[in-house]
Amino acid sequence: MNPRTAPTQVGALPDARGLGPALRWRKEAAVGARLRRSVEVYSAPPPLSGPDGVADWVAERRAAGGFRVDRVPFADLDGWGFDRRTGDLAHRSGRFFTVSGLHVRVEGGVPVPEWHQPIIDQNEVGVLGILVQEIDGLPHMLMQAKMEPGNANTVQLSPTVQATRSNYTRAHGGRAVRYIEYFTEPGRARVLADALQSEHGSWFLRKSNRNMIVEVPPDADVPVHEDFRWVSMGALGELLRHDDLVNMDARTVLACAPVAEEEPQALHPDPELLSWFTGERSRYRVRAETVPLAGIPDWVREPDRVRHREGRYFDVVGVRVRAGTREVGGWTQPLIEPCGTGVTAFLTRRIGGVPHVLVNARVEGGFLDTVELGPTVQCTPRNHAHLPSADRPPFLAAVLGSPPERIRYEAVHSEEGGRFLNARSRYMVVDAEGLTPLAPPPGFVWATPGQLNALVRHGHYVNVQARTLLACINTGAVRL
Amino acid sequence: MNPRTAPTQVGALPDARGLGPALRWRKEAAVGARLRRSVEVYSAPPPLSGPDGVADWVAERRAAGGFRVDRVPFADLDGWGFDRRTGDLAHRSGRFFTVSGLHVRVEGGVPVPEWHQPIIDQNEVGVLGILVQEIDGLPHMLMQAKMEPGNANTVQLSPTVQATRSNYTRAHGGRAVRYIEYFTEPGRARVLADALQSEHGSWFLRKSNRNMIVEVPPDADVPVHEDFRWVSMGALGELLRHDDLVNMDARTVLACAPVAEEEPQALHPDPELLSWFTGERSRYRVRAETVPLAGIPDWVREPDRVRHREGRYFDVVGVRVRAGTREVGGWTQPLIEPCGTGVTAFLTRRIGGVPHVLVNARVEGGFLDTVELGPTVQCTPRNHAHLPSADRPPFLAAVLGSPPERIRYEAVHSEEGGRFLNARSRYMVVDAEGLTPLAPPPGFVWATPGQLNALVRHGHYVNVQARTLLACINTGAVRL
Repeated sequence: MNPRTAPTQVGALPDARGLGPALRWRKEAAVGARLRRSVEVYSAPPPLSGPDGVADWVAERRAAGGFRVDRVPFADLDGWGFDRRTGDLAHRSGRFFTVSGLHVRVEGGVPVPEWHQPIIDQNEVGVLGILVQEIDGLPHMLMQAKMEPGNANTVQLSPTVQATRSNYTRAHGGRAVRYIEYFTEPGRARVLADALQSEHGSWFLRKSNRNMIVEVPPDADVPVHEDFRWVSMGALGELLRHDDLVNMDARTVLACAPVAEEEPQALHPDPELLSWFTGERSRYRVRAETVPLAGIPDWVREPDRVRHREGRYFDVVGVRVRAGTREVGGWTQPLIEPCGTGVTAFLTRRIGGVPHVLVNARVEGGFLDTVELGPTVQCTPRNHAHLPSADRPPFLAAVLGSPPERIRYEAVHSEEGGRFLNARSRYMVVDAEGLTPLAPPPGFVWATPGQLNALVRHGHYVNVQARTLLACINTGAVRL
Repeated sequence: MNPRTAPTQVGALPDARGLGPALRWRKEAAVGARLRRSVEVYSAPPPLSGPDGVADWVAERRAAGGFRVDRVPFADLDGWGFDRRTGDLAHRSGRFFTVSGLHVRVEGGVPVPEWHQPIIDQNEVGVLGILVQEIDGLPHMLMQAKMEPGNANTVQLSPTVQATRSNYTRAHGGRAVRYIEYFTEPGRARVLADALQSEHGSWFLRKSNRNMIVEVPPDADVPVHEDFRWVSMGALGELLRHDDLVNMDARTVLACAPVAEEEPQALHPDPELLSWFTGERSRYRVRAETVPLAGIPDWVREPDRVRHREGRYFDVVGVRVRAGTREVGGWTQPLIEPCGTGVTAFLTRRIGGVPHVLVNARVEGGFLDTVELGPTVQCTPRNHAHLPSADRPPFLAAVLGSPPERIRYEAVHSEEGGRFLNARSRYMVVDAEGLTPLAPPPGFVWATPGQLNALVRHGHYVNVQARTLLACINTGAVRL
């Protein structure tokens, strides 16, 4: 009989060939405990300033890059143009992505049952991956200082790998994606998490990316390129308390870290929570069909942007990027620029001593399947300013009016800077102890962080905004 | 402080109002143990013959119904017709479902990368639900003797509730659906399982139904209508060993029963299995678009059927139903009639003493998301008879050539009789001990029944054919 991998063995790799007759443990409780240690011991490296400080290092990489991003009219985009027949904005090679129109109809009770909008169509699954290795007995994550044109500050802390499929298969040439082999070659690393997670359903059509965390043994030799650094989860938690420093791709992967200590009890047993979600998902009937961008109602095309006629929601714009350290030296591309800063917040309270957050089953036109679980509040207040207060998003006023002592977490983060320009949202966790009922309005439910951690092992349960807040919980940026 | 529900308490209902401050156990191990007892003690009622025999009772209900189903040309369908512009086959009220065309393109390496076919478009989530109650200390399931026009034997054993949303909301009038309140009114019963599961991806466009199992306390008064009977899971297992007796809707719900004793070990740890699945799902790029049925390549419309020009795959046909006990006394409708009996099989073997089955990540044009896990073999051999043997489905020859002593399970079952006519498949579980490698071909993986049971808590992992085989495992129809 072959020796077996004990459930408490640290850093053990699976049999790379997968051929041995040995059984392996289905679940390894030690993974969560080890990651939690990486959250608690966060002094290596120092997250902020000083010669080893991660934030200072990101600033140094930003300075070294010498990046510049300028708005340009569509006519100045190289290779991009509006299709003569459909009006869709696409690259003449057919690569990258297309901005087309979307017609959404929703049955089941929503404030707006039908609308048209531009949408990014990119039918390609990318990899967002974080490589983990124990250093001095503590799991660290290999993070990248990466430039993206739409990010505030351009360079932010990113996952080890952030690549479209065309990128990493080098379908169109280009440099190899560093460290991709740990994520695509079986047996190179042990998988801690791997699920297809949705991206912004209001801006992307059924887009999902593979969110992966993989670990190499402590003695594996991983050369560290100058744009990369090993960072503990606790240091990442500290960095997440600062504005525009940890990018969206890093946040969504951190949300998938199997770090939560599973609470044995919750307001709702797991089958009941799943049943509530199934009920919400089947309550709506969503028909979302791509239509030609040209002539969709309420949207106007101008030389330098496609905009909503009331100036709401977002613009489609063009940018020119000058950069020294990316796959190519400079390029032009369209981006989506939201109108105003968003507010994205969890209300939190303890129930029987156990922390819960209030999640909301949200319909977004670009979701693969009707609803996903979002934060308590997720909106751009400016888009609702014209409405009577009763028609504004539930709990928005409560969040915006919170006294400082109830704000447990607050930081402004950027959404995907490769597709969105200045798409910033104020992420908050607000203490609702004594303010919100255990029986929330329809579409809302109290769940524990452990329950969200269990759901996020699978795709299309927790939306990308809620995953940012979950990343803050996972890394200790906020303690509930 | 309120009293808490202990994890071993039997038949306890949640607080119906969900308002109390009491926490509840997230997982209740006792549910699985109680259901397993219902599998082991299967003598109540006797599954087959005799005055109380379930099979005899189904035959009696069949005789009492006096059903008759006849093929008719399309011109004889009441209210159904081919749209003048699109050629789609639809009801003039817009109700029920539509047969339209589907254009499928698959990138990522499949034998046939592009095709057209007719497809059933029914964008509505129904409820398939089984009501459970302990009788004499043993959980029993309330099963229905239900007529469906396409079923072999017309009347088969069905779940407690099998209803489209239009049915149970009585959108178009009609009788109330019996027992639906236990599945739609919160607090009427405790949820044991509730997930949106896919149906046949080759015949249905992105169709899923809510698969639910709910339990009422032993002292609840549940009046039993003459078309219904309480049956233990073990009796259902015995009935599943017979041809055309337990319908597809009952089988898919039984697959979701949280009955498996979780094996602590398996060939692949759970995160590795999930990662393999995520890799398979992101390996393919599937574009499936509805197109007008009229004029799709390779398909021919005749007065009494739409067929493939080579006579393969399936026909779209019409039937007239005469019945005494359904929602209406008689009706006409289209059905899909496959060309030939299918073969649907799991290969099984023990690995380190633990039973495993060989699952296959399958692309089907109508799936919501590229692939789901299917059985080792799932095909209609006649559709592949014209191909050289190397191009036929992997393991098909091995399954068909199995000596009797390796056949652990074999029965012919009907697929959904409300949409499919004579859609029968030979379901098999074949012992592959010593014959199949631990490292199977690409697209295949060994998984334990416990791993499939864990996946089937969520939707869109395990396809409807694999769920029939899982139902046989769950109910003891086959012992691995």
